[in-house]
Amino acid sequence: MKYLTQDEAQKIDQELFNEFAFSVDQLMELAGLSVALALTKAYPMPAEKSSHVLVCCGPGNNGGDGLVAARHLKMFGYSPSVFYPKRTDKQLYKNLVTQCTLMDIPLITELPTASDIDANYNFIVDAIFGFSFKGNIREPFGTIINTLKDVKTPLCSVDVPSGWDVEKGAPDGLQPDFLISLTAPKLCAKLFKGQHHYIGGRFVPRILHEKYKLDLPDYPGTECCVRVSN
Amino acid sequence: MKYLTQDEAQKIDQELFNEFAFSVDQLMELAGLSVALALTKAYPMPAEKSSHVLVCCGPGNNGGDGLVAARHLKMFGYSPSVFYPKRTDKQLYKNLVTQCTLMDIPLITELPTASDIDANYNFIVDAIFGFSFKGNIREPFGTIINTLKDVKTPLCSVDVPSGWDVEKGAPDGLQPDFLISLTAPKLCAKLFKGQHHYIGGRFVPRILHEKYKLDLPDYPGTECCVRVSN
Repeated sequence: MKYLTQDEAQKIDQELFNEFAFSVDQLMELAGLSVALALTKAYPMPAEKSSHVLVCCGPGNNGGDGLVAARHLKMFGYSPSVFYPKRTDKQLYKNLVTQCTLMDIPLITELPTASDIDANYNFIVDAIFGFSFKGNIREPFGTIINTLKDVKTPLCSVDVPSGWDVEKGAPDGLQPDFLISLTAPKLCAKLFKGQHHYIGGRFVPRILHEKYKLDLPDYPGTECCVRVSN
Repeated sequence: MKYLTQDEAQKIDQELFNEFAFSVDQLMELAGLSVALALTKAYPMPAEKSSHVLVCCGPGNNGGDGLVAARHLKMFGYSPSVFYPKRTDKQLYKNLVTQCTLMDIPLITELPTASDIDANYNFIVDAIFGFSFKGNIREPFGTIINTLKDVKTPLCSVDVPSGWDVEKGAPDGLQPDFLISLTAPKLCAKLFKGQHHYIGGRFVPRILHEKYKLDLPDYPGTECCVRVSN
């Protein structure tokens, strides 16, 4: 299985938009849906109880994937809440927030303490930073990531554990229990030590697979995510 | 289960876009995916053979759902071809065609004869007209629908069998083997006599369900379509 450098991940992303003419709306919808579906496989809904999920969204596309995943989790009967401290003015993101709000997904304005998170949530979605992340972690995300490091509740990272270098990881960074690599795993996924690793985003055309020699495992049947062993 | 009038179907559609701030890209992607998934349930891929599918697309949103469904069917290993005789200038539709083309989905320029269709395709997707259809069938679609009436290959209609009055059906119209009602069935679905009826488009927020008293069957687990018996 191929692990992508940051540069390769960015090139594939650009090709999907520029050559294959996908819109952000389309791919974010499919990516977010695959995140939600993989989460339901890793953390099935407990019988006769609801499953509370805290979805932490960052300022860019990774956060957008999180907002879409929250909406689909709600459709599947989970009880997501969204923490989205740094919003963008882009219309798509405003729309995603409207969709969540009108579907009764609470938008919380402050991150609870680690012990409150442990008391109230079944798992946490880390949709803060994705494959474009570089450099230092700016506030408020440094503080947020530090809180998430102290949490015992399973942490689920979308594409890249937030704060990790996309290629080299972060030895003292977040240690998620779940990672879903979108399109293809990034180099840092080799350092993932959690229980559940999925590939999601079943929309990469065959000619891109070949061009980048992705050599991914086959998606089973009509599933939009596939479990991989590290 | 509630069957919608044309007016109700149009109102729900408008609310999804205006109140819930969904984009056409988002809902068409989810609708087309549910069409593709329901088709794979009704017509599973024959072992060790490919399944050839002719997707006939009309000029509006129903045609767009067909283009999205074709792309997902291709991802699932089917061999779709698209017949899309009357195109629009809207960018989304041009993009959907580009996506199909670059994923090696043939775009055929003439509808084969009924006997050629029967010889070469496992099933046909009728994505010509949807819930907005009113009045007379304009050419070239009258001729196309007449050809499809002569075909023995299973015909699969998206949302509304093309040419049917959305409420009253059409006694001498197409007789599909499969119907997927998107969002909720329209009144004409009561007259559907085929084998497979599905509801798809798992994106309608609960408050819209309540407002329009949709009373749909529950989607099982995380499925995005549900089979109903007429």
